[in-house]
Amino acid sequence: MTEVYNFSAGPAMMPKKVLEQAQNELLNWLNQGTSVMEVSHRGKLFMELAAQSEADLSKLYNVPENYRILFLQGGARGQFAAIPMNLIGKKGKALYLNSGHWSASAAKEARNFTEIDEINILDTEPALKVNRLDFSDIAQQYDYVHYCTNETISGVEIFEIPNVGSTPLVADMSSDILSRGIDISKFGMIYAGAQKNLGPAGITIVIIRDDLIGNARKDTPSIWNYAVQRDADSMINTPPTFAWYLCSLVFKHLLAEGGLTAVEKRNLAKAGLLYDYLDNSKFYYNVVAKENRSLMNVTFTTGNDELNAKFVAEATACGLHALKGHKVLGGMRASIYNAMPIEGIEALIKFMQEFESRHA
Amino acid sequence: MTEVYNFSAGPAMMPKKVLEQAQNELLNWLNQGTSVMEVSHRGKLFMELAAQSEADLSKLYNVPENYRILFLQGGARGQFAAIPMNLIGKKGKALYLNSGHWSASAAKEARNFTEIDEINILDTEPALKVNRLDFSDIAQQYDYVHYCTNETISGVEIFEIPNVGSTPLVADMSSDILSRGIDISKFGMIYAGAQKNLGPAGITIVIIRDDLIGNARKDTPSIWNYAVQRDADSMINTPPTFAWYLCSLVFKHLLAEGGLTAVEKRNLAKAGLLYDYLDNSKFYYNVVAKENRSLMNVTFTTGNDELNAKFVAEATACGLHALKGHKVLGGMRASIYNAMPIEGIEALIKFMQEFESRHA
Repeated sequence: MTEVYNFSAGPAMMPKKVLEQAQNELLNWLNQGTSVMEVSHRGKLFMELAAQSEADLSKLYNVPENYRILFLQGGARGQFAAIPMNLIGKKGKALYLNSGHWSASAAKEARNFTEIDEINILDTEPALKVNRLDFSDIAQQYDYVHYCTNETISGVEIFEIPNVGSTPLVADMSSDILSRGIDISKFGMIYAGAQKNLGPAGITIVIIRDDLIGNARKDTPSIWNYAVQRDADSMINTPPTFAWYLCSLVFKHLLAEGGLTAVEKRNLAKAGLLYDYLDNSKFYYNVVAKENRSLMNVTFTTGNDELNAKFVAEATACGLHALKGHKVLGGMRASIYNAMPIEGIEALIKFMQEFESRHA
Repeated sequence: MTEVYNFSAGPAMMPKKVLEQAQNELLNWLNQGTSVMEVSHRGKLFMELAAQSEADLSKLYNVPENYRILFLQGGARGQFAAIPMNLIGKKGKALYLNSGHWSASAAKEARNFTEIDEINILDTEPALKVNRLDFSDIAQQYDYVHYCTNETISGVEIFEIPNVGSTPLVADMSSDILSRGIDISKFGMIYAGAQKNLGPAGITIVIIRDDLIGNARKDTPSIWNYAVQRDADSMINTPPTFAWYLCSLVFKHLLAEGGLTAVEKRNLAKAGLLYDYLDNSKFYYNVVAKENRSLMNVTFTTGNDELNAKFVAEATACGLHALKGHKVLGGMRASIYNAMPIEGIEALIKFMQEFESRHA
């Protein structure tokens, strides 16, 4: 079979070594004669896995002592609801920065639970560019400020951390978590659905500062009440154990590969190769300003819908899967999360060159 | 290695054939060169899997035309919150029948969202016995009546369907879903976390009558808004695709094994063997009335804590895992869900005989 490179935006490619280990021990985990998905989450072995995974994630991000890590269900969209339920307090409103589809979706859901203000921070002309990140003048009016670090549809990533003074900053990092080092202490809370860089869909990670826990409104579902889940070690109900296990393998894999310094270096090299190629091309182009080009989702187009469709179909036939852009935007999108090897980028560029030579 | 029989109450044993198939195709699903957990839920192949899984579950339960099946996240405990958010209407309150820990937990969570009345339906002396199931005189005061068909901790199962007149009946079937045939038309809604009879922890199934969808309160998280999820084919956010895939394999497995008629017959035989043994024993006993003895969770004790602890330790050493009773109740519990073969029951009884001969 042809080597397949999977550019899916999510659920996305997993590290091959992780999948191979999961496959090897799928019916016999730690010589127990059972699968990891068949054992009690309250048993000694799974509790050890849970504790170790927290320690490993903590190490990867150098998580400060006064932060807690929660492993939840419901995806980032679940957190879109959980965040206002947990974090709205005396000020009674939150500020949402809008840089595209996902940040807007978070704001839309939050409106069902609280008053919010929403500020557009994205210029669309002449290129997609984040135009403002200093909110220190107004942030104190709000219980928190929310933004999304990476917009998967357009391929816009925000590398600079917004200035919100002492107001808690909440970041949806679903699509760039663990892709580069960040200073957790700059955030009140970060969260992410797993299905890009962490593991399979179905588990959601929250890293939150201690003092923000404990003020949830009464009608907060207990599985999303951060105080309840902190006190229950994220096990107020049965957690998604197999997904948690896979995340734990991914954390170990990233540590073994050199931690986030090495991860970031690889991601810069991968994305750099592709953007350099695009910048030198007269056939394909990308419309994101250089300072906001996503390291995770590289969007490009030929500018011709018919040609784009042909590109996607021919690429798929060559083992380059899931390159079709989001329906909102059209064109192509190469999602190149942590698990994508540089060989995948090289194969894509080779195909792009061949396609251009046939169709330019 | 000794053959292991895993009596875990949940996450519980999965059918071996299902795990073997999952293992075989873990890195190469449908010859795609990728894992099922790495592909888009919106792609053709996963959408086909989702539709087929719904059709298969529908076939297993003979689900009437006017019911919808949803695949959600958050477990049964998530539904404890989602149910009042979706189903409380003009009457403004619900009735919760209390038969033990899980039905009480559902009621406790519901109180955060609505007014409820709670009625204890369990006698504890001389045996655990459900004492009342006709609520046709009072049910019309409520938007719905909730109960739990099987209490895993005590091993109490309710086989008769409560009479609630025309009020919607809502049943938590987390621990006996697909264990026997039921008439879905008697229920407004049934729901279940997956980790006993359906698949791995992390996916939750809801089967709900059409007319009960569409009345959710405004501040219902969209991932639990039944109308939103119905309209989005359970994909308003990224679903737990790998868990869904495993459920789809379990459905196919149950159909191939003869559907729920065959499943029920096997479960009656398995539980019958163990209860018959307990009834004839002067060393072990079970405290549940015959009409409410769970086919899924068989609780028993020697009446002596020290002996019970020894039993659990020695059984574990012999490959009979997870027989320790819930901490609330002590003693032993053999959870014998669909995937437990009769050989597991026979091995357990053989061990019980040997243990008795050494310690009686």
